[in-house]
Amino acid sequence: MNKPEPAGGFRVLGTTPIRPDGLEKVTGRAQFGDDIHLPGMLHGKVLRSPHAHARIRRIDAERARALPGVRAVITGADFPQVKIDTVQLGEAGIVDMHDLSYNVMARDRVLYDGHAVAAVAADNPHVAEEALALIGVDYEILPAVMDVRAAMAEGAPVLHEKFKPGFFVAPTQKALPNAGRLDVAVGDIEAGFAGAEVIIERAFTTETVHQGYIESHIATAQWEANGQITIWTSTQGHFSIRDQVAVLVDVPMSRVKVIPTEIGGGFGGKDTVYLEPVAAMLARRSGRPVKIAMSRAECLRATGPSSGTWIKVKLGAARDGTLLACDVYAAYEAGAFPGGPIAPALLTSVTRYNIPNVRLEGYDVVVNKPRIKPYRAPGATPANFAVESVLDELARALAMDPVELRLKNAMQAGDRLILGFPCQPLGSRALLEAVRDHPHYRAPLAPGQGRGVAYAFWFGAGLISSAQLHVNADGTVQLCVGSCDLSGTRMTLAMQAAEALGIDAGDVQPSVGDTDAVGYSFPSVGSRTTFATGIAVIEAAQKVIAQMTERAALLWQTEAANIDFRAGQFVDRTDAGRRFSFRELAGRLPETGGQVSGQATVTPEGVGFQIAAHLVDVEVDQDTGKVQILRYTAFQDVGQAVHPDYVAGQMQGGVVQGLGWALNEEYCYDADGRLVNTSLLDYRMPTSLDVPMIETVILETPNPGHPYGVRGAGEVPIVPPPAAVANAIYDAIGVRMDRLPMSPRNVLARILEPTRG
Amino acid sequence: MNKPEPAGGFRVLGTTPIRPDGLEKVTGRAQFGDDIHLPGMLHGKVLRSPHAHARIRRIDAERARALPGVRAVITGADFPQVKIDTVQLGEAGIVDMHDLSYNVMARDRVLYDGHAVAAVAADNPHVAEEALALIGVDYEILPAVMDVRAAMAEGAPVLHEKFKPGFFVAPTQKALPNAGRLDVAVGDIEAGFAGAEVIIERAFTTETVHQGYIESHIATAQWEANGQITIWTSTQGHFSIRDQVAVLVDVPMSRVKVIPTEIGGGFGGKDTVYLEPVAAMLARRSGRPVKIAMSRAECLRATGPSSGTWIKVKLGAARDGTLLACDVYAAYEAGAFPGGPIAPALLTSVTRYNIPNVRLEGYDVVVNKPRIKPYRAPGATPANFAVESVLDELARALAMDPVELRLKNAMQAGDRLILGFPCQPLGSRALLEAVRDHPHYRAPLAPGQGRGVAYAFWFGAGLISSAQLHVNADGTVQLCVGSCDLSGTRMTLAMQAAEALGIDAGDVQPSVGDTDAVGYSFPSVGSRTTFATGIAVIEAAQKVIAQMTERAALLWQTEAANIDFRAGQFVDRTDAGRRFSFRELAGRLPETGGQVSGQATVTPEGVGFQIAAHLVDVEVDQDTGKVQILRYTAFQDVGQAVHPDYVAGQMQGGVVQGLGWALNEEYCYDADGRLVNTSLLDYRMPTSLDVPMIETVILETPNPGHPYGVRGAGEVPIVPPPAAVANAIYDAIGVRMDRLPMSPRNVLARILEPTRG
Repeated sequence: MNKPEPAGGFRVLGTTPIRPDGLEKVTGRAQFGDDIHLPGMLHGKVLRSPHAHARIRRIDAERARALPGVRAVITGADFPQVKIDTVQLGEAGIVDMHDLSYNVMARDRVLYDGHAVAAVAADNPHVAEEALALIGVDYEILPAVMDVRAAMAEGAPVLHEKFKPGFFVAPTQKALPNAGRLDVAVGDIEAGFAGAEVIIERAFTTETVHQGYIESHIATAQWEANGQITIWTSTQGHFSIRDQVAVLVDVPMSRVKVIPTEIGGGFGGKDTVYLEPVAAMLARRSGRPVKIAMSRAECLRATGPSSGTWIKVKLGAARDGTLLACDVYAAYEAGAFPGGPIAPALLTSVTRYNIPNVRLEGYDVVVNKPRIKPYRAPGATPANFAVESVLDELARALAMDPVELRLKNAMQAGDRLILGFPCQPLGSRALLEAVRDHPHYRAPLAPGQGRGVAYAFWFGAGLISSAQLHVNADGTVQLCVGSCDLSGTRMTLAMQAAEALGIDAGDVQPSVGDTDAVGYSFPSVGSRTTFATGIAVIEAAQKVIAQMTERAALLWQTEAANIDFRAGQFVDRTDAGRRFSFRELAGRLPETGGQVSGQATVTPEGVGFQIAAHLVDVEVDQDTGKVQILRYTAFQDVGQAVHPDYVAGQMQGGVVQGLGWALNEEYCYDADGRLVNTSLLDYRMPTSLDVPMIETVILETPNPGHPYGVRGAGEVPIVPPPAAVANAIYDAIGVRMDRLPMSPRNVLARILEPTRG
Repeated sequence: MNKPEPAGGFRVLGTTPIRPDGLEKVTGRAQFGDDIHLPGMLHGKVLRSPHAHARIRRIDAERARALPGVRAVITGADFPQVKIDTVQLGEAGIVDMHDLSYNVMARDRVLYDGHAVAAVAADNPHVAEEALALIGVDYEILPAVMDVRAAMAEGAPVLHEKFKPGFFVAPTQKALPNAGRLDVAVGDIEAGFAGAEVIIERAFTTETVHQGYIESHIATAQWEANGQITIWTSTQGHFSIRDQVAVLVDVPMSRVKVIPTEIGGGFGGKDTVYLEPVAAMLARRSGRPVKIAMSRAECLRATGPSSGTWIKVKLGAARDGTLLACDVYAAYEAGAFPGGPIAPALLTSVTRYNIPNVRLEGYDVVVNKPRIKPYRAPGATPANFAVESVLDELARALAMDPVELRLKNAMQAGDRLILGFPCQPLGSRALLEAVRDHPHYRAPLAPGQGRGVAYAFWFGAGLISSAQLHVNADGTVQLCVGSCDLSGTRMTLAMQAAEALGIDAGDVQPSVGDTDAVGYSFPSVGSRTTFATGIAVIEAAQKVIAQMTERAALLWQTEAANIDFRAGQFVDRTDAGRRFSFRELAGRLPETGGQVSGQATVTPEGVGFQIAAHLVDVEVDQDTGKVQILRYTAFQDVGQAVHPDYVAGQMQGGVVQGLGWALNEEYCYDADGRLVNTSLLDYRMPTSLDVPMIETVILETPNPGHPYGVRGAGEVPIVPPPAAVANAIYDAIGVRMDRLPMSPRNVLARILEPTRG
């Protein structure tokens, strides 16, 4: 696709119109999942396993069924058996539908504390809750395994008879229990280390964390007597939900209509089903619509999370700072079923530096925790924590400025990526120079304070997106897309349409179509929507302009080839006096053959890489171990910023989530594998009191893979915070943190360690 | 467009799959207008004029506003002033937006009993109703005019200062008050009558009738703080509603989203706004969603109706039955604003016969009744009653069989239509021969029984339609159209998609998209949806097949030109072994570039004419005047019948409505112009006890203007019943009815007339 007019800058992109959904959201009028109320609607509740690993001998639901007000009780036996090896494209790769079905409702075994075992639909939530207590489940408790290293140890309890690992990952079940393995190698790792003058090797541990979306999971389903299923849900991808429900309840895709509600956050955790097939089956049984809402405890126990990890990094360099070899070993939790983020974790672990000899060895490890879900740049954050910590230690060993060390080795356009292809245009030098030259980097620090830096890279995604544009007779335009709006993408897509059509952003009315109305679109994941759906929007706009040019030709009795579309005007090149504005010509469409529409479904390839460097100042209370964030500046190359305020918001949001991961968030399990911190009081996410204003520095290196140079922006900002904070802690008090979270307890433990320093 | 494969018959068309919405409708689960419930929703009520014509001196709403529970009160003063001469394409021509605005809410004057003057939104319907009683309106009563001849008489009260007549019609205000005039002439009318051997001239009166949809008008509106308006309404055309609301409340079209609910009948009466702008303004004032439902009395007083008329027909023929001249004078009520159906009434009055000399003189007459709306073949029924009655009298005068007389003069393909263009292929001879040869035509009759026949013609409409198809990975297909489904068109459109795609009808999931989601579509009027939207569907399907052919070429590493799509298979002509079924290839789309979609917006020209001939047996009780329908057979050429059961249903439904018009339905006004029969007890529509089983005979002359030969079928069956029944009454008792309804009162009056016979 050629870059459309105007070449000399944008009219709409780069401005900051007020978001259309803002007022509704702040006044409580926007329709979220829990705002769905249907006549005769029942309320569902899910009975969940209290055991991390157990065999289900028997479920007795008779007393629950007999409770007045109970309309349906279902268990795993009510679900169709999904054939093994049924897969769908989804998330960061392939979704195993058989596993997904077992995750939605356990059959013979429960695999984690919180695993669904039965569900009830009743006249109100209280009766449903009461009915849960009447369901008797006879469990045979099995040994649980909660840690990647324990799970891979000889003699560990084996979670799956047939182990089918995920995307890019090969099974290792014979060699190691519970794990799939991924190996990537470039150059000669032995020779690389042999030639290195400084070698640093460290191991790191990170804990399981949750995506922490503020709106929990909630779904409402209606199963009509004619077999048509309608589902309202809060999701990142309603087409994925549709396709998964169709398989899990065994109906054709065409029979399922999914209507996405407004969504209170997803971050990678809301693109596969949990409640939707359960609500659908309860609706089928009861003949009534059924809504199910998860409590926060259910959300933490049974959805998300992101992997806890164990990572070892060995890095070798020449005395001048040239990186020569890097060996990364990473074991990532997959949760109860294979398919964690080990592949992107490994592939982005060192991709941002030119290192001639690299060996990456990764394990996707099943443990008795909830099935792992992507979380904003899935897998990258723990690996970045490890690699950037070692790099910081290397800089100190070489007595080099840590930014200069990164600048020296930074991958640039044309360098060979780890997967073999050359790097596209990337503002890596400009970004790191911006860090080096920023006043923050030179600002004085008081004693007990420290400064850290980290640098991160993320691929992002392209994938399938659809958009359609319909031109109204008054010159306004309806834009309907298949991409759920998590972050303001209705506006960023409307802005791209307006740019392409030469009209104002306010003249484009964006909406997210349901699965009946709009073309297939992959979920809003991988920072893809503004980029990939944007390309679909621009392509649809070009189709609109081509058709409107034909209409102008008809009205002017000339050839379309004589008409240019320039700066929002249709101009007759052969008669300069003749021109139509977009609005004028729109008014002539009804008389020249009716409305003009443009539809496009695209699978763009030119995904723009995301890079970010973060700078943080901390103060560490050495008596308590508490780390206070004093100042934070996030630098990021976002390509063309469509709506700079939203970009800044993405950067700030990512930083805050990264800080939560860095400082406090962790799943705490007891000795029996039960999650003990199941509320937001105990699972400690950052609040506004925990973080200062996050300063943002936006750089814009156009992405050649998008007509306007847009690249994704939403994921990479979560990646650097743990490493940046760890490096700042070392700078402040000389303690090198090798585990997350760097909570007061963990920091204090490290301070008090005899071997500290 | 070429006629697609297969040439030798259809796989899907002509079958009778079960309608997808049937079960939901009979079990009460389908979502009609009154099933919309929104959080915080208010209920609106409309205060209506008790006077047929009055000046509004003052409206005092203060007491109503003060009533607890009342959230908003509005009057005409709250509506933006729509500029005079603002028009939109709509209904059977142009809709005057200024008039429409004044019809929705009166300003300085009320023009009919039931005209809206104020509206209230309150916490519940009871408070709203109570509030209406507290609104004081000071009226200055003006003289009213209730009849077309009175309205055109010298010195009649003039309803509109500036008279802007409608479609095809020129103003006559200077010559005659309250009327627009349309003249059409062919040949030399004087010479025609001069050469005629038999001339019959008669005058006829018909009364105002209502479309009688079983679901009254109901609309719910939400006006968000960001200016976005959402409307749920029961309508024949949600895009028309959107465009009209946008003008009447003065916002851009893009800001209004209209979601059509299921609809309980429309018949031409539900494609312009009544409640929608009122609910929107109340929602704006109150900041809450507002629902307004009309009672049956409101529906009868303020919506619909179809014109009462006065029609004079003079017909001249040669002794052998050759028609030589026809002079039709018709005055049709327009109701309170110009724009009744005089044009289609005149243009179809004699178009079905070859008559060399024709003069048509028509008047569109404003009277103090509700603004007239189209009703199934708008305007044709009264004119047909007049012309076919005179033709019957002519047959008796010539001692000819009435069917033979019609056969002798029937217009056929290639004959010149009254507007000058040649007639397209039309099965007129076959149709009339089918009547003549049907057992019903020869069945014996008892004394006091009679048999009548009438023959009718209708144009139908093409206009703008949009459709989009999305192919799912499991081979099922979503079909989304912009045409509201009044009569099962979701199924007839899905069947055309299935035919074109070579799949089963059950694999196509049809839906009606809202105005944000789908391309512009004209309302479902003029028997156009299965025909015109069908063409959009087929065109979208052809785009799908073209793209899927490209995908097959990609997979086979060949050229698309080498691949045929035949009988649902993609076949490689160069390698006969290679073929994909539609489903197989659909499964390969995700890996070859993503989903395939097809979108089309069309404005088809080749509308197929509709012809019908009806045969009816009656028995007349000469003591009471009651006419009993004994047997009824409806013959119709429907082109290719897509779903023959639906076609039969359309024919039967049209006959029943025509029988209601013939026998009982009429608006009864008192001397002050107040409607007195405002319930379905007093406004007497036929029930199942009034009619026998309507037999249907379907003929299929393909329409060359549609790829599958489809022509509209829904309108023409309402046209012949009054004439057929009138002719049967004459056959039974020798009384020639010259007025509708042929109710016991009117029939008895005619029986008792001294001049009878």
